[in-house]
Amino acid sequence: MDERTLITRYFAGRQAGRGDVVLGIGDDAAVLRLEAGWDLVVATDTIAEGTHFPAGIPARAIGHRCLAVNLSDLAAMAAEPLWCSLALSLPKAGPPWLEEFSAGLLALADRSGTALIGGDTVRGPLAATVTVQGRVRPGKAVTRSGARAGDGIWVTGNPGDAVAGRLLLDAPGQVPAAVRDTLCQRFLYPEPRLREGLALGALATAMLDVSDGLHDDIGKLMAASGTGAELDAGLLPLSAALKAAAAGRAVDYALTGGDDYELCFTAPDAVTGRLQQLAAGWDVPVTRIGTVVSEPGLRWRHQGSALVVPDTTFRHF
Amino acid sequence: MDERTLITRYFAGRQAGRGDVVLGIGDDAAVLRLEAGWDLVVATDTIAEGTHFPAGIPARAIGHRCLAVNLSDLAAMAAEPLWCSLALSLPKAGPPWLEEFSAGLLALADRSGTALIGGDTVRGPLAATVTVQGRVRPGKAVTRSGARAGDGIWVTGNPGDAVAGRLLLDAPGQVPAAVRDTLCQRFLYPEPRLREGLALGALATAMLDVSDGLHDDIGKLMAASGTGAELDAGLLPLSAALKAAAAGRAVDYALTGGDDYELCFTAPDAVTGRLQQLAAGWDVPVTRIGTVVSEPGLRWRHQGSALVVPDTTFRHF
Repeated sequence: MDERTLITRYFAGRQAGRGDVVLGIGDDAAVLRLEAGWDLVVATDTIAEGTHFPAGIPARAIGHRCLAVNLSDLAAMAAEPLWCSLALSLPKAGPPWLEEFSAGLLALADRSGTALIGGDTVRGPLAATVTVQGRVRPGKAVTRSGARAGDGIWVTGNPGDAVAGRLLLDAPGQVPAAVRDTLCQRFLYPEPRLREGLALGALATAMLDVSDGLHDDIGKLMAASGTGAELDAGLLPLSAALKAAAAGRAVDYALTGGDDYELCFTAPDAVTGRLQQLAAGWDVPVTRIGTVVSEPGLRWRHQGSALVVPDTTFRHF
Repeated sequence: MDERTLITRYFAGRQAGRGDVVLGIGDDAAVLRLEAGWDLVVATDTIAEGTHFPAGIPARAIGHRCLAVNLSDLAAMAAEPLWCSLALSLPKAGPPWLEEFSAGLLALADRSGTALIGGDTVRGPLAATVTVQGRVRPGKAVTRSGARAGDGIWVTGNPGDAVAGRLLLDAPGQVPAAVRDTLCQRFLYPEPRLREGLALGALATAMLDVSDGLHDDIGKLMAASGTGAELDAGLLPLSAALKAAAAGRAVDYALTGGDDYELCFTAPDAVTGRLQQLAAGWDVPVTRIGTVVSEPGLRWRHQGSALVVPDTTFRHF
């Protein structure tokens, strides 16, 4: 199969359009119209087999995931997605695999209003790089650097579920099937918090998405803001499934597991009421787990004692 | 080395800025300001070791090349580059290699006015995916589909040089060192024809960049335009170096070699004078090699006879 056939059959002809795509897949580049009064927001992330996901997971999940992790970055800026491109490295390309991969990618693309506008394919180890473009009103992007001492530190969803799901993919152990399924789905099909991120644009002082583990990512946010944090692990919104599967390690999973693709943000006390009102309409919980302080560094407590969280910063190189 | 250190040391702090980068490397996404009255142009291309370049070529050339092949796509749309992001898959990351890679990338970025605004790194086989963003006035992008019967078919530069250089990297043979160096440079450091592409925006009816071989790429342009072509291989601007290195195979190299990153475009006879005037100021030749006709397909002639060019469409999969 040549590249053109692959692209036409599995990608170009299978998506809902957007009126602002002047020229889509098939030329040297795409041409796009950004409405006046918006800034462009761009993120690029790669997911590679063996590093970001284990071999053998469903192609549909890989297709979903490569877009989801990028949309999650847009959500963390309080941006709205517009377009994406895909660079796909494939060891082989059986029609059933491609069918499922593109179905996973395009289902999320359509649901989030993101048009696939181009890309590239290359023969190689399985990896997918997506670049996503979104928009935000000038000055309204929520960066990592706006946290202020006294702000609350909040997180969406149930951190720790995804890493537990990842571990259960390979070693189901003694965990009940329903628990395992719930957690594996959370790893395989992370849901970018786009609606929540957009809404938080009006309330949050700083925000990022939790991909490397809550402890590590809160550390990045505080470092960018020149602040520190006091946090209570007892406040972590551990899911019933996580507690059932991980028992005594649930807090570890939530703090250092990664792959959550939840939003972590800071907000002043004055907006807590509005935040809770907003969040009442969400499918996902939002939980305050700590407070920003001026002294740098993260200080976790758990059940009244200091909790030392190991440095798990992932070193690729 | 963690990813943040790598990015800061080799990429983030080493480039000239652009005023329209509201937020660059270091947050979840970049924020960019597209001036009113412009459309956005986006291209994504991957180069992978073993597929797009042989193992062992200089890191500086890989850094140059991953951006160059993408800028070449913008040139082919008559677009002006603005920003780029890089997803780099690296087997290892010795400081000298990264130093040279980023020097190659950033030298071309600075020279072309392209700001590096983000990206991702992953441990894996050597491959670099760049997504480049540029701008064009609404309606002024030159696509592949505007060729009209009677238009001339033109090409910039000296097709065939790059593939000859690629072959000479591994097997220098009996070729004089100066010839070999010239051709190898043409493979290692393709020069995106940005200035030429922008200027051709006012004259060309259709355009693409020649990456898969002149024959194959002209075929794509004609197919997109619903036209065909009559072409004379005797008019091909074969360089002295190519003729010295490839002798009787020079025409084959020019037609099917690929990796040229030259522009191929069509233009009506009425603008030939203006085109030649423009091109007089360029460092690169521009040569008419054929004529668009209404009957589909490409018909090459050489020295008075029909020349059959084999289908060399690259099938990755």
